[in-house]
Amino acid sequence: MGNNVKITSEFWGRYRNLVRTEMIPFQWNVLNDIAGIKIEKERLNDDGIPSEKSHAIENFKVAAGRTQGTHYGWTFQDSDVYKWLEAVAYSLREKMDPELEKKALEVIDLIADAQEEDGYLDTFYSILGIQYRYQSLAGSHELYCMGHFIEAAVAYYAATGNEKVLTVAKKAADNIDDNFGPEDGKIHGYDGHEEIEIGLLRLFHVTGENRYLKLAKYFLMERGKHPNFFREQAEKYQGPNALNGIEKAADTYFQNHKPILEQDTAEGHAVRVVYMCTALADLAATTGDAEIYGACKKLWDNITSRRMFITGGSGSTFHGESFTLDYDLPNDTMYCETCAAIGLIFFARQMLRIEPKAEYAEVMERTLYNCALAGMALDGKHFFYVNPLEVNPAKSLKDPGKSHVKPVRPSWLGCACCPPNLARMITSLDDYVYTISDDAILINQYIDSESTFEYKDGTVTIKQATGYPWDEKDGVVINNKTKSVVRIGIRIPAWTANATLKIDGKAAEISKEDGYHYVDVTAGGSMEIELTFPMEIKRNYCNPLVSEDIGKVAISRGPFVYCLEGVDNGTEINGLRLPEDSTFEYEYKAGLLNGVGVIKAKGKRVELSTSTELYTNSRPTEENATLTFIPYYAWANRGENEMEVWVRE
Amino acid sequence: MGNNVKITSEFWGRYRNLVRTEMIPFQWNVLNDIAGIKIEKERLNDDGIPSEKSHAIENFKVAAGRTQGTHYGWTFQDSDVYKWLEAVAYSLREKMDPELEKKALEVIDLIADAQEEDGYLDTFYSILGIQYRYQSLAGSHELYCMGHFIEAAVAYYAATGNEKVLTVAKKAADNIDDNFGPEDGKIHGYDGHEEIEIGLLRLFHVTGENRYLKLAKYFLMERGKHPNFFREQAEKYQGPNALNGIEKAADTYFQNHKPILEQDTAEGHAVRVVYMCTALADLAATTGDAEIYGACKKLWDNITSRRMFITGGSGSTFHGESFTLDYDLPNDTMYCETCAAIGLIFFARQMLRIEPKAEYAEVMERTLYNCALAGMALDGKHFFYVNPLEVNPAKSLKDPGKSHVKPVRPSWLGCACCPPNLARMITSLDDYVYTISDDAILINQYIDSESTFEYKDGTVTIKQATGYPWDEKDGVVINNKTKSVVRIGIRIPAWTANATLKIDGKAAEISKEDGYHYVDVTAGGSMEIELTFPMEIKRNYCNPLVSEDIGKVAISRGPFVYCLEGVDNGTEINGLRLPEDSTFEYEYKAGLLNGVGVIKAKGKRVELSTSTELYTNSRPTEENATLTFIPYYAWANRGENEMEVWVRE
Repeated sequence: MGNNVKITSEFWGRYRNLVRTEMIPFQWNVLNDIAGIKIEKERLNDDGIPSEKSHAIENFKVAAGRTQGTHYGWTFQDSDVYKWLEAVAYSLREKMDPELEKKALEVIDLIADAQEEDGYLDTFYSILGIQYRYQSLAGSHELYCMGHFIEAAVAYYAATGNEKVLTVAKKAADNIDDNFGPEDGKIHGYDGHEEIEIGLLRLFHVTGENRYLKLAKYFLMERGKHPNFFREQAEKYQGPNALNGIEKAADTYFQNHKPILEQDTAEGHAVRVVYMCTALADLAATTGDAEIYGACKKLWDNITSRRMFITGGSGSTFHGESFTLDYDLPNDTMYCETCAAIGLIFFARQMLRIEPKAEYAEVMERTLYNCALAGMALDGKHFFYVNPLEVNPAKSLKDPGKSHVKPVRPSWLGCACCPPNLARMITSLDDYVYTISDDAILINQYIDSESTFEYKDGTVTIKQATGYPWDEKDGVVINNKTKSVVRIGIRIPAWTANATLKIDGKAAEISKEDGYHYVDVTAGGSMEIELTFPMEIKRNYCNPLVSEDIGKVAISRGPFVYCLEGVDNGTEINGLRLPEDSTFEYEYKAGLLNGVGVIKAKGKRVELSTSTELYTNSRPTEENATLTFIPYYAWANRGENEMEVWVRE
Repeated sequence: MGNNVKITSEFWGRYRNLVRTEMIPFQWNVLNDIAGIKIEKERLNDDGIPSEKSHAIENFKVAAGRTQGTHYGWTFQDSDVYKWLEAVAYSLREKMDPELEKKALEVIDLIADAQEEDGYLDTFYSILGIQYRYQSLAGSHELYCMGHFIEAAVAYYAATGNEKVLTVAKKAADNIDDNFGPEDGKIHGYDGHEEIEIGLLRLFHVTGENRYLKLAKYFLMERGKHPNFFREQAEKYQGPNALNGIEKAADTYFQNHKPILEQDTAEGHAVRVVYMCTALADLAATTGDAEIYGACKKLWDNITSRRMFITGGSGSTFHGESFTLDYDLPNDTMYCETCAAIGLIFFARQMLRIEPKAEYAEVMERTLYNCALAGMALDGKHFFYVNPLEVNPAKSLKDPGKSHVKPVRPSWLGCACCPPNLARMITSLDDYVYTISDDAILINQYIDSESTFEYKDGTVTIKQATGYPWDEKDGVVINNKTKSVVRIGIRIPAWTANATLKIDGKAAEISKEDGYHYVDVTAGGSMEIELTFPMEIKRNYCNPLVSEDIGKVAISRGPFVYCLEGVDNGTEINGLRLPEDSTFEYEYKAGLLNGVGVIKAKGKRVELSTSTELYTNSRPTEENATLTFIPYYAWANRGENEMEVWVRE
C-alpha cells in the first residue's frame, strides 16, 4: 500500500505545522527537562505521582551507562520518547528537516545503547534490576513500551529508510518472542496494557516476518484465559515497585476477565480497550479471520452505540479511566481521555480495512474533529488528558470527584501519554484519509490533499480541493493511470440527508452502499467529482436511556459538535436553555480562535434568585438570552471558564 | 431543665419500639459478633476496610485482660459500643427493661475494667501500645471515642442514676484534662474528629465541674490555630497504624485550616463539621458568648442556605465525605451520610437554646423526617450510610464513582457509625420536641406527647394530640401550674402559608415572630390550642445556582420530601416528567410501607427508542404516564430499584 498523501488543507495544515514547529520541539525540551515548565498533577491530592520532571531521556542515558543516576517517573516513562520519535518520523516523511533528523538519530543511538545485549529494552528494569524483568506485567508496561518503540521504529524506517532503528526493533521483538509464547519454558502471559500487539503487527507488515504476526496473535488470544495471571505474578514479585497496587484492580480493568473472542462489551481502562481492538482488527484484516472480525464488531458496536460520548470520547469514569456500563455517559465526571479518542480512530482505521462501511469513517470523523482535537490547545503547547462535556471551574477546584476535569489545558501532565499521542496522530493524518483495497479506494475523510497511489498495474492520483470542515463544497479529481477500471467509494456524510453530487459536471443520483457512493473511473481516464454536503445546523438528541441527556440537545454542524462557553455566554451557563423553536445564525469568524464558525441562537436564561434561599416554592423565571456556540475542539482557549455541550431544550 | 416528655405518637412510637425491640438487640449481637451477618464493604474495591466482623466487645475484653487477643477494626471501633450504650440509656429512660439494664451494667463493668489506672480509655492503644497514646490524633480517634463514652455515661447516669458510669467518665475526662491544654508540658492539640467537645460539655452540664467546660472551650478555640499539628505528630509517630495516610488529608478535612471563629464556610468531612458546630453552639448557649454564637451562625447559614440537600443531607462528595463548595449539590454522587444528618439535628437543637428562631426547628424537621429517617429500613435492621437523591442500581454496581451509593440498605457496614447514631437519636427524640428557656417554652416539633416540665416556680404540662406527620390538625393543651405567666412559642411551619389557629375554641390571628406565634398562659391557668396546618402538596424549586436541579421540581407534603421509586414507576425513571400544570391526588395508604401518604400525578414519560442508535436528530417523543410519589424516608424498602427526588418539570 503506497502512502503518498500530501495534505494541503488549511485547517489541518495549521495543526500539522504546529506539531512540527511547536509540539515536537516543546516535547523534546520536556523529555530533556529543559522546558522550564511545572508539570501538573492530574488531580487534587495526587501525591506520589511523578510530577517534578519528565526525566525520560535521562532514564535512557542512565540505562545506557552514559551517566550515573536512577530511574525517575512512571514505569512507562520510556513510551513518551518513543511516541515523540514516531511523530518525528511522520513529520520527516512530510517534510525533511536535517536538524530534527539529527535529534532523532541521536535518540535512536541512545535507545540502541540502552538496549540489553539480548534485545530487551526497558530503562526501568535495566536501571533498577534486570533480573526482575517480565515478572510484574500488571503494572510494568515493559511490553507496552517496547510496542511503542516498535511502532516508532517502523514509522521511522518507512519515512527515512533508517535500518538501525528497525534492527533495534527486531531485536526487541525477538527478545519478547524468546520469552513469551505457548512453548514450555516461556511465559504464558501478556502485558497489563495492550500495545505490543499493535507494534508486532506493524513490524510484521514491514518485515513480512511471520513470527511477529504469530506472537501478536498469541498475546491477543491468550488474554483473558488466565484471569489470575497478574495476581500470581504479583504474589511472587520481589523487584522494584512497578505495581502500585494495580494488580488488585478488577480483571476487567485489564480486559482480562474472559478471552477476547468472548468479550461482548468494552470493559475496563478505555485506552487499553481501544488499543486491544486496534490490534485485533489489524489481525482480522491481515488474516481474514471472520471470528476475530466478529469479536471486533461486537466491541465496536458496544462502544459506538452504547458507550461513546457525542464527541467521540469514551471512558465514563475517572476510576480506572474506565468504561462502566451501557448508556452511562455522565457529562461532568467522565474521563474521555484524549488517548482513548485517538485509539478509537486507530480502531476505526483498521475496521475500514476489513469492511467498507462508512460508519467506521463517521466515528473516525466525529472523534477526530471533536474529542481528539480538543486534547490540544490552539497554541500546540497545552493539552487535555480528560475531555469533559461540561465543566464548572469552581467544581474542578473544590470537588475532588471532579478534580480530574481541568478547565484549562495544562502544559504537561505527570502522566504524559496524551500530548505525544496527539503529535503522532496529527502528523500521520494522511494515513486516515483513504482506505485502499483491491476492490476500491475509499474516500473516508474530506481533507484537502494531493495523493498518488501505486495501485494495481499503475498509479491513481486523487486531488481534493474542499471547503471542509467549514464549507459544504468538495471537489475531487481522480486520475486513473492504470490499465484497469478503478472503483472509488465516496463517503456521503451521515450528518446530512441533502448531499448532492455531480460527476464531470453532470448531476448524479446518490446511491449509498454502507454509506459510500461508488463510481468507476475508466482505465486511463479521469473524473471530476463535485460534492455538496449542506452543513445544516443540527439538533442532536441522545438515546433516552442516557439519563444525563434527557431533555437536552447538542448542536452540531458538519463534523463539529458545538458547545457553549462562559466567555461568550456569561457565568452559570447551565441556566441557559435552547427552546425547540429557536432558529440559528451561522457566521464564520476568521479572527476568532484561528477561524471558527460561530452559531448563535435566541434562547432563555434562568434568572438567578435575588434571594439567597436555597429552596422555594416559586418556579424560577426565565429571561431572554442569546446563546453563542463555538466548536467543541476550540473551547478553553480563552481562559478558565464554564463549558457545556448538552443544553437544556 | 427537666426532661419528661413522653412520646405517644404512633408514627414515632413504631420507630422507638423498633429501636428497642430490633435495633438494640441486633446491634448487641453485631457488637458481640453473634449476629450471623456479613458486614458489607462500603464501596467496590474497598480492600483493607475492616469488614469481617465487629469485634467491638471483644476489643474491650482484650483490653480488660479478660481474654487474649489483639485489636480488630477501626481505631474508632469502641464508639460503636458507646453509642449502643447511649441508646440503651434513652431506651431505659423511656421504659425500664431489667434484661437490657443487665447487659448495660455488664458493658459498663467491662468498660471500667478496660480503663487504664490513670483514666485513659481506648482499647486500640491499651491493646497495641499504650506508650503511643495521644501521638497520632489525626487518625487515632481516641478523644472521639472517649467523647462518645462520656455522652453515653451522662445519658446513662441521667436515666438511671448509675454513679459508676459517671465515675468512669470523669476519670477519662480528667485524664484528657491532665494531658491537653495551654499549660506547658501538655499537648497543644485536639482530635482529628470532633466529638470530645460535645461530651465534655454534657459532662459539665451534669456535674457543674468548670474544668470540663474550660477543656471543651480549649479544644474548640485551639483548633485551626496549628494547621501543621497533625502532620507534625504523624512525622514523629512510631506506634501502631492509626493513620492510614489520613494525616495527608487537606487541613480543611479536619476543620483545621483556620481558627474556628474565622471559618466562614463549612469545609471538609461533614460529620466532623456538624459535631464541631454542635459543641460550639452548646458553648455559645452555655456561656452566652456572642462572638462564638456569631461563628455558629456563619456556619449554620453556609450549610443550610448553600450546602444542604432538600432532604437535610449534607456532604457533596464521597471523597473525604466532605462539603465541597456553595451550591454544589449533585444528586447521584453526593454523600449525605446519615450521621451528618443526625449531627445537623444536634446542631439545630443547640442553636434553639441560643435564639428562638424557627428556622432551626425547620431544618431539624426537614432533616429528621427525610435524610435521617431514610438511614434506616422500616424493619429497623438495615441501614444506609449514604442517602442519595437519585439512584440507578446498575450504576451503583458498575460505576466506581457511584459505588458508595447503595440501592438497598445493608444490614451493617464496615464503618458502622450510622446505625447506633440513629438508635441514640430516635430514643432521645423527646429532647428535640421543646426548647425550654426562662423566656418561653418553644414547641419545635409536632409529635404526640405528654410532657411535664419543672418550670419556674411550679410545673407546666403540655399535651400534644396531633395528626402529624400525615394530617393537618394539631391540638395542644397546656396547663400552667406555676404562679407565673408562662409564655409558649408555637412554631408555625414554614411549609404552609395557610395555617390557622384557635385558642380555647376561638379563632386567633397568627402573628409570627421568627417563625413562632407566642401565647401567654396565665398563672395557674390552662389553654387549648387548635392548630390547622394545611398539608398542601408543594412543588419545590432549588436555587438556580444549583446546576443539577435547574428545570427540576421536588415534591413535598408537610414535613416529607417525596420521591419516585422504580417499584411504583417502572424502570428508567429519569425519563419521567411532571409538567407544570399537573395536579396531584393524595391518599394515605395504611397498608403500604407501614402507612404512608401516596401522591399521584399525571405526567409524561419519554418513549424509549426502538432503535439502538445512540445519537439522532429526532427529538424523543413522550407518552402519558402516571407518576407515583412516596415519602423519601420510605424508599428502598421494596427491593432494589431506581429512585429520584428531583424530577424534570
